[in-house]
Amino acid sequence: MKVISILGSTGSIGTNTLRVTSNFPNAFRVAGLAGGRNIALLADQIEAIRPQIASSMDEDASCELQGILRHRGYPMSRTRFVQGVEGIIEVSCHPEATMVVSAVTGAAGLMPTYRALECGKSIALANKETMVMAGQLMMEKARAAGVEILPVDSEHNAIHQCLRNASRSEVRRLILTASGGPFRNTPKEKLATATREEALNHPTWRMGKKITIDSATLMNKGLEVIEASWLFGVTSDQIDVAVHPQSIVHSMVEFIDGSVLAQLGLTDMRIPIQYALTFPERWPCPLPALDIQRLSKLEFLEPDRNKFPCLDLAYRALQRGGTAPAVLNAANEVAVETFLSDGIGFGDIPGIIGAVLDAHHPEEASTLSSVLNADIWARQTARDLAVRTRSTAR
Amino acid sequence: MKVISILGSTGSIGTNTLRVTSNFPNAFRVAGLAGGRNIALLADQIEAIRPQIASSMDEDASCELQGILRHRGYPMSRTRFVQGVEGIIEVSCHPEATMVVSAVTGAAGLMPTYRALECGKSIALANKETMVMAGQLMMEKARAAGVEILPVDSEHNAIHQCLRNASRSEVRRLILTASGGPFRNTPKEKLATATREEALNHPTWRMGKKITIDSATLMNKGLEVIEASWLFGVTSDQIDVAVHPQSIVHSMVEFIDGSVLAQLGLTDMRIPIQYALTFPERWPCPLPALDIQRLSKLEFLEPDRNKFPCLDLAYRALQRGGTAPAVLNAANEVAVETFLSDGIGFGDIPGIIGAVLDAHHPEEASTLSSVLNADIWARQTARDLAVRTRSTAR
Repeated sequence: MKVISILGSTGSIGTNTLRVTSNFPNAFRVAGLAGGRNIALLADQIEAIRPQIASSMDEDASCELQGILRHRGYPMSRTRFVQGVEGIIEVSCHPEATMVVSAVTGAAGLMPTYRALECGKSIALANKETMVMAGQLMMEKARAAGVEILPVDSEHNAIHQCLRNASRSEVRRLILTASGGPFRNTPKEKLATATREEALNHPTWRMGKKITIDSATLMNKGLEVIEASWLFGVTSDQIDVAVHPQSIVHSMVEFIDGSVLAQLGLTDMRIPIQYALTFPERWPCPLPALDIQRLSKLEFLEPDRNKFPCLDLAYRALQRGGTAPAVLNAANEVAVETFLSDGIGFGDIPGIIGAVLDAHHPEEASTLSSVLNADIWARQTARDLAVRTRSTAR
Repeated sequence: MKVISILGSTGSIGTNTLRVTSNFPNAFRVAGLAGGRNIALLADQIEAIRPQIASSMDEDASCELQGILRHRGYPMSRTRFVQGVEGIIEVSCHPEATMVVSAVTGAAGLMPTYRALECGKSIALANKETMVMAGQLMMEKARAAGVEILPVDSEHNAIHQCLRNASRSEVRRLILTASGGPFRNTPKEKLATATREEALNHPTWRMGKKITIDSATLMNKGLEVIEASWLFGVTSDQIDVAVHPQSIVHSMVEFIDGSVLAQLGLTDMRIPIQYALTFPERWPCPLPALDIQRLSKLEFLEPDRNKFPCLDLAYRALQRGGTAPAVLNAANEVAVETFLSDGIGFGDIPGIIGAVLDAHHPEEASTLSSVLNADIWARQTARDLAVRTRSTAR
């Protein structure tokens, strides 16, 4: 019986994780849930799973959650209710859990994932920002604790599958595939005025808002390049990106002997989630088989780095190293939030990130505080820039 | 230093093996060569490599070979010259070799490969007929000796790569790709009168004559289905065939969780040969990288089982089991030889094989003699049928 805690249980990865664990009731037990804004869904999950611990966003949310559950006759003593950042960390470090599914969105995932590693939990990692901000620290912690960080992101999960039993020195390059997002065929001059609705209309994957916007700017692929560099121990020039609109080939590895291994599958996150949960085994998944004839006429194209400057910004941050990727990530989070709240236009996003990155003098990312300081500085700088961008536009 | 013997050194796999070993002069030493009809080439190979032992087809060939070498001033005492079936077996069992590259064409590869396993050599296997005829025996011998049979065939090599570190119980099915051969787009009614030259004109791979004709009838894929069943321990209903005219995806594995792994590469046999020779490591190969954009518009189609009945004949033989695959293989070898010597038409090949298979009562293929008896019976039956087919046609 594998006992797991899920951080971000009400998000897309969290709900899919629960669909996977519920298929194997004798193999998985969920000890802890940390939910997001959707209190009604968190209440449903708690009722179904009866975890030992459940965390809400804040005290108000926790009160509301407990009210709903009490009203439904839930046995309140079954579950300890906690909240906020400390609550998530309590869920993350719950003594019975041996694996933590880290699926909180954005930089908020960093601390609970870091603490889970300190507590010796293995990690099923969906929160790529953790690796972007503090990849070096995370890999060091995992090595020290002797635990695995298993990627849930479909691309990194694909690479993990292709690399099973391979040594790093056998890898020539990783090829991350990208759907290309909703604006793949949109002319560059129309991107500046793209609406929130257009940007949120992802062609192949149903995901949360933040990651969907990141897919539209290709920053998502940029963050994945940085994540891949840490997870698989390769340099930026060993990672290529191929636009593959059908999202069937989830990524590829080219080895030094010229062989290429590719992982393919339906665009259903239950496959990579289950792989991470059951590793080093594979268990059956009740999904239809991939129709091999659907592999005809797949496309693999060069990304348009001119139209989507976020991709090169990420490569630049990775090459500069140290705290630069944390700054890139923070500036991106602020820019995306501001775009989603109609504060700036879609076309303003890369400019803000680039300006914050240019203004930053990277330091070593060898401690959590250096990473968090860079994150705070970058957020403030990005916010100031976003306000100025908005006022210029009006 | 890995010491190898090469059976079939003057064939397509043999010469490519020598290109691979010559790239790593400090890692490989070739102790033995068994050559085919091309005596001049065998002489060149011996001069370049100076093996301890060299085998020719027969005594005449050996005399001619030694004459050439003596004339060139080759230090004759360096190499022991042997010939015939016993000669190949001596090369195969040479005490210094730890690995044997089994690349003799057809059923002639069976005995030397079997004896190599008995002598505890690991096998780089290009001769699929060995596994088709006596897969059960070969796998038992390899297990008993604690050695590996590493497939060199691009399809099985691809599957071996996809399966690294996977357990058999995790495999849902294997998908063998087939180029479709030169007659993929030829109407069925024109196949009956296809010429030798048309059949030998393979669209993507340069190979020997026998295997090229087998590719044209799809029997090659059928033999590979049987080989895969033994090598990877799966049943006939776990093996599918997809026609993939570009020959870039060399084969795929679908796992029980819905994930598919595919191996891709240039159509150059040096890649799978080197993989087999260097396993469990991968070494650099001085070939150009696969251009990922070439992966656009690949095709994957259902094979036309009506136009190419040899594929289903192979499935039938595998399902019947025992000596049936050995009979299929022998009948096919006779039919192909007779076609190549203009004895029968291309369209007569499947009919002869099917008739021999129908006339056969399979026995257990648990001893070498039961396999060899079935082989002899099938050859005679096929020859009789071929003669009758020819006289009917004239």
